[in-house]
Amino acid sequence: MANSASGESVISRAMRVIEAFTAGSTVLGVSEVAQRTGLPLATAHRIVAELEAERVLERDSQRKIRMGTRLWEISQRSSREMSLRMAALPVMHDLQALVKSHVQLAVISDGEVLYLERLSRRNAVVNLAHPASRIPPYLCSSGLALLAEAPREVQSRVTDGPLTVSTDHSIRTGDQLRAILAEARRRGFAVSYGYIQPTAKGIAVPVRDPDGRTVAALSVVVPLEVDHLPIIPAMITASRLITEGLAPHHYTSDDDPWRVRGTGQRASRPRTTGADAD
Amino acid sequence: MANSASGESVISRAMRVIEAFTAGSTVLGVSEVAQRTGLPLATAHRIVAELEAERVLERDSQRKIRMGTRLWEISQRSSREMSLRMAALPVMHDLQALVKSHVQLAVISDGEVLYLERLSRRNAVVNLAHPASRIPPYLCSSGLALLAEAPREVQSRVTDGPLTVSTDHSIRTGDQLRAILAEARRRGFAVSYGYIQPTAKGIAVPVRDPDGRTVAALSVVVPLEVDHLPIIPAMITASRLITEGLAPHHYTSDDDPWRVRGTGQRASRPRTTGADAD
Repeated sequence: MANSASGESVISRAMRVIEAFTAGSTVLGVSEVAQRTGLPLATAHRIVAELEAERVLERDSQRKIRMGTRLWEISQRSSREMSLRMAALPVMHDLQALVKSHVQLAVISDGEVLYLERLSRRNAVVNLAHPASRIPPYLCSSGLALLAEAPREVQSRVTDGPLTVSTDHSIRTGDQLRAILAEARRRGFAVSYGYIQPTAKGIAVPVRDPDGRTVAALSVVVPLEVDHLPIIPAMITASRLITEGLAPHHYTSDDDPWRVRGTGQRASRPRTTGADAD
Repeated sequence: MANSASGESVISRAMRVIEAFTAGSTVLGVSEVAQRTGLPLATAHRIVAELEAERVLERDSQRKIRMGTRLWEISQRSSREMSLRMAALPVMHDLQALVKSHVQLAVISDGEVLYLERLSRRNAVVNLAHPASRIPPYLCSSGLALLAEAPREVQSRVTDGPLTVSTDHSIRTGDQLRAILAEARRRGFAVSYGYIQPTAKGIAVPVRDPDGRTVAALSVVVPLEVDHLPIIPAMITASRLITEGLAPHHYTSDDDPWRVRGTGQRASRPRTTGADAD
């Protein structure tokens, strides 16, 4: 039903239109939408008009199109990740006041680290990443802390796979990564030393739901030369306070955030939009 | 094209399915989706399957459906409101550290106050609202600060319209509201005294883009008995710092966030999900 000659559904084409809008291109004309999506101009016109009628997209005075707030509102109200974020935010503020640096909350989604929140201070270390950045788990402390607790087959998939290198400090071999994961598992926290930004390091601890299941990572980014060991107890306390604010069974029993769905493209594409996200 | 017997487009039906998920009902079965949307079960099944293929919706182990992170990710990356939020967040953290209370950022959307962010402290005044809450502008300080700067015809639409009353303190008459707006305009900030929550008051200042156009309100919620005047200079400074972080022409010239689009239902329905949001 409702499919194009290519068999693609209307919903799929609508998602392509929505995804044509990015951080770098928040305002587009219909012809640009057609170009970016590969859809015929008439189709792009029709889908834009329907999304505008639904107030997903908006037009400005020049008839240019941009994203409205509707999708954000809907997802903000109803997604599990947002309730995690709301439970974590006050605790993250307290932690930030203490460590006086960036504090982040991340989950695994589709095998990648997805940042749900990042609290930044003015005048803190340069920080290019935004919430909704995704990066491979072996490039940041959050990913390492979560990978350290993942099932062995998930770990093997990453340690045996290709590793993207961002800086001279990045993890280069599966053996190196295996040793780092073993240490993170033993110590209960993970550290990334300039893997993405050579001058910054990240420290992450796992966050569990009341059932003891790991659901997120809480991390802090500090300059490379800062001693991070004094920060760890405060991070562990913060993580426990977040757990107290979560509902039991935050994840149901056989959810697998490490499972890469769809074409697998997403996981193989190294997208370090999170720049210095370690 | 692609319309049902009722003439409703696939995209419109898909939006109905997505909106069936709310803060109180984050996990639904397909039959519940059908029930909530009024769509035939087969249609609900098909649309859920398509949205699942697009990873907008996800299934858990019990085959129950819930919202994924995809819509949040897309909207987070590409919407203008999110870039405003990112510019404001570090400044809001500093303000919060100073005033030690809730700090909020809101815009006008479709004639309503829409909260983009709320920084809350543990142990601060009770605060039931979440980002993405919407409330009528005359019920909160953010709305009053923004309404005070709105064109006269917008003000009249609100002062002449019906006013919902939440507490004994709420504004009850158009004359009262007109006087409050005149004072807010003269002083450069607005105060709401227990309009929603009888024990809290909100203080709001407008936030402008580098072109001088008002784009948002920055507000603080404190207990009713706290003297708010000492807070005002810090709020005005914070507002100016946010302006510095915004791109010029944040809004294009004839955007009108006060315009109520669609059926008009939205603006007439008093939805104070923002509880003590003043």
